[in-house]
Amino acid sequence: MEGMAKAMYRFAKRFDGVGGSEIRKIFSLLGVPGMISFAGGNPSPDLFPSETLAEISEEIIAEQGKSVLQYGGTLGVAQFIELLKVRNADIMKEDDDLVVISGSSQGIDFFAHTMIEPGDVMLAESPSFLGALQTFRLADAQIRTVPMQNDGVDTTLLEEQIKKYKPKFFYTIPTFQNPSGITMSAEKRQQVYDICSKYGVLILEDDPYAELRYSGEPLRSIKALDNSGIVCKLSSFSKTISPGLRVGYAIANRDIIAKFNLLKQGADVHTSNLTQTMVMEFLKRGYYDDHVKMLCREYKKQRDAMCEAIDKHFPDGVQRTDPQGGLFVWVTLPAGMDSRKLFEACVAQKVAFVSGPPFYADGGHENTLRMNFSMPSIPDIEKGVERMGRIIREFV
Amino acid sequence: MEGMAKAMYRFAKRFDGVGGSEIRKIFSLLGVPGMISFAGGNPSPDLFPSETLAEISEEIIAEQGKSVLQYGGTLGVAQFIELLKVRNADIMKEDDDLVVISGSSQGIDFFAHTMIEPGDVMLAESPSFLGALQTFRLADAQIRTVPMQNDGVDTTLLEEQIKKYKPKFFYTIPTFQNPSGITMSAEKRQQVYDICSKYGVLILEDDPYAELRYSGEPLRSIKALDNSGIVCKLSSFSKTISPGLRVGYAIANRDIIAKFNLLKQGADVHTSNLTQTMVMEFLKRGYYDDHVKMLCREYKKQRDAMCEAIDKHFPDGVQRTDPQGGLFVWVTLPAGMDSRKLFEACVAQKVAFVSGPPFYADGGHENTLRMNFSMPSIPDIEKGVERMGRIIREFV
Repeated sequence: MEGMAKAMYRFAKRFDGVGGSEIRKIFSLLGVPGMISFAGGNPSPDLFPSETLAEISEEIIAEQGKSVLQYGGTLGVAQFIELLKVRNADIMKEDDDLVVISGSSQGIDFFAHTMIEPGDVMLAESPSFLGALQTFRLADAQIRTVPMQNDGVDTTLLEEQIKKYKPKFFYTIPTFQNPSGITMSAEKRQQVYDICSKYGVLILEDDPYAELRYSGEPLRSIKALDNSGIVCKLSSFSKTISPGLRVGYAIANRDIIAKFNLLKQGADVHTSNLTQTMVMEFLKRGYYDDHVKMLCREYKKQRDAMCEAIDKHFPDGVQRTDPQGGLFVWVTLPAGMDSRKLFEACVAQKVAFVSGPPFYADGGHENTLRMNFSMPSIPDIEKGVERMGRIIREFV
Repeated sequence: MEGMAKAMYRFAKRFDGVGGSEIRKIFSLLGVPGMISFAGGNPSPDLFPSETLAEISEEIIAEQGKSVLQYGGTLGVAQFIELLKVRNADIMKEDDDLVVISGSSQGIDFFAHTMIEPGDVMLAESPSFLGALQTFRLADAQIRTVPMQNDGVDTTLLEEQIKKYKPKFFYTIPTFQNPSGITMSAEKRQQVYDICSKYGVLILEDDPYAELRYSGEPLRSIKALDNSGIVCKLSSFSKTISPGLRVGYAIANRDIIAKFNLLKQGADVHTSNLTQTMVMEFLKRGYYDDHVKMLCREYKKQRDAMCEAIDKHFPDGVQRTDPQGGLFVWVTLPAGMDSRKLFEACVAQKVAFVSGPPFYADGGHENTLRMNFSMPSIPDIEKGVERMGRIIREFV
């Protein structure tokens, strides 16, 4: 037996052209000492409620070990599901159900596999979350896009794309979008819902940042408008409590959740009972609201520092979004500039961000980039943005 | 807007004919007070190391909260990966890599999606783990089967099926198989490897029970024989430490693991850092080996009690397997008997098991059933088997 040549692996075609996240490739650069990074999308580890979670986990394993360490129901811990339903009473419809998932990414994956046959078309915002774009590609979807405006997706083009491509669903991150930081206005939420409902196009509403609002008024979830069972809403505790626990949830019509249930039996049987129960107790014991308030207070300072520093240090002709919450500011350089070249120059001077093109399913937009403000300290934000500003001026 | 009719959901065709686990449907019956259940596949909650895990979790969250609560690498916590590689040095090849997964079910799902295009053929043992069969169906695979013998799969028929169907891979649970309790002999492991290697058929070796051996000599993993990079091995801590934590791992050629990595970015980004670190510390602090020894001591008593009770109470003409480990005994009733009818009669008298046909991808085998001995107490095993014996005699 001479050994099997690598070439003999006949991988499924869905991997063709899927190269993995460009962000992941950047991450190896970020360990360089002294690097100021605006590249990540992580919540601040300084703000994790470690002490409380340590206490909770010790207690529930010691007292409820027989259940939290055992296999559980595929939809989630029953008591946790009930709690989440109560908390979401304003958006849940009579025919809706709820499933706990291992982060909202899993919900994107399940929704894609629930709806997409190889070659089916779906719509995404442009730009959009690149992890989701990769998931849609691996689910053999054809991605068509709809450009973003300052108050959310361009609804005229949304309707045109729907008429043209008859997509299965429209993927949107309406609140403090990753990567753009843009929030869809109340008017557009209604328009998007009405258009999709008219043409029978489902909406996948990915809303993990919604509670991280630092200014402006809260807006209703698109799911709250849903009288026809077309919206599947994904929420997550990754940005508010801890991403390391991998706990989120999906709300949709029970026929859709039934498909999620089948997929989840194969995916991971169920989300960890321990991490579910930890999140449940964090909510039940009343820590959550104060914790989120604290997060908003702290992140607001970081957002303000970043926006002010950009306005001060970046040259005229550079535009930025004005995020009311979330983790990101989106920057548009003067036309003709290439953010990938800028990236190389910046990394050489120890400041990093993420270049924009990977967030566009159709490519292009070389002059865009994403900057995260939740991970760096305020002094680092000021220092890093100033440094970036200097380098951009050399490019202009 | 009149509301969208349910019928408008255009679900992907992969769900056609997939009805979900029949076992899950049974579970609602098991809450009946006084029910003695041999139906589950859970490890015994009385044997969970709750106290130790409570201590560990409290400590690591308090001391390492900034990392265990943060996003982590898709392949797993680096230190945990290193530890698992050292523990698996005897089976890891130079070109192999390791990824931490959220239970070995996730590995089955990833392997299927790595290899299967809609309609591709794969081979499974008959009977086989029904969760895996469902996953293969949802991955649009065509399942062909190879019958089990007392020392593992029928290798003559394995080769015939390979020649006939040119499958992408062969799925096997070589040690204390779920559902049959059968262990593949050392000779057959070599034969299976040689046949698959000869025809370029990959092997998915699912081995979550391997450490739960109560008699007989340990056998080498098929992965240990793998000189040509055709074996992907799945392991799990669900049966030995806790299923509620959802921690397992996969070992395969790095080109295969690279595909798992892409799929995992979309599936759940990474397995919970907290539960990974808990398992790592349980291993590092030296609790694991003694814990598994204790499990084997206790489960041996339960297995012996069940086998003895079956031999005593079931009528002549009923056959059972002789499991050297794991959680299950497989029972074959006299030809013509229907275990589903027996199930109804048994449940009416408060004793439950799982009927065999769902474990056969091709159906049939109405006279088979699976009995679990890890969950019930020894008095319940004796009482329940006696009761079943009485009912079977009425059927014969």
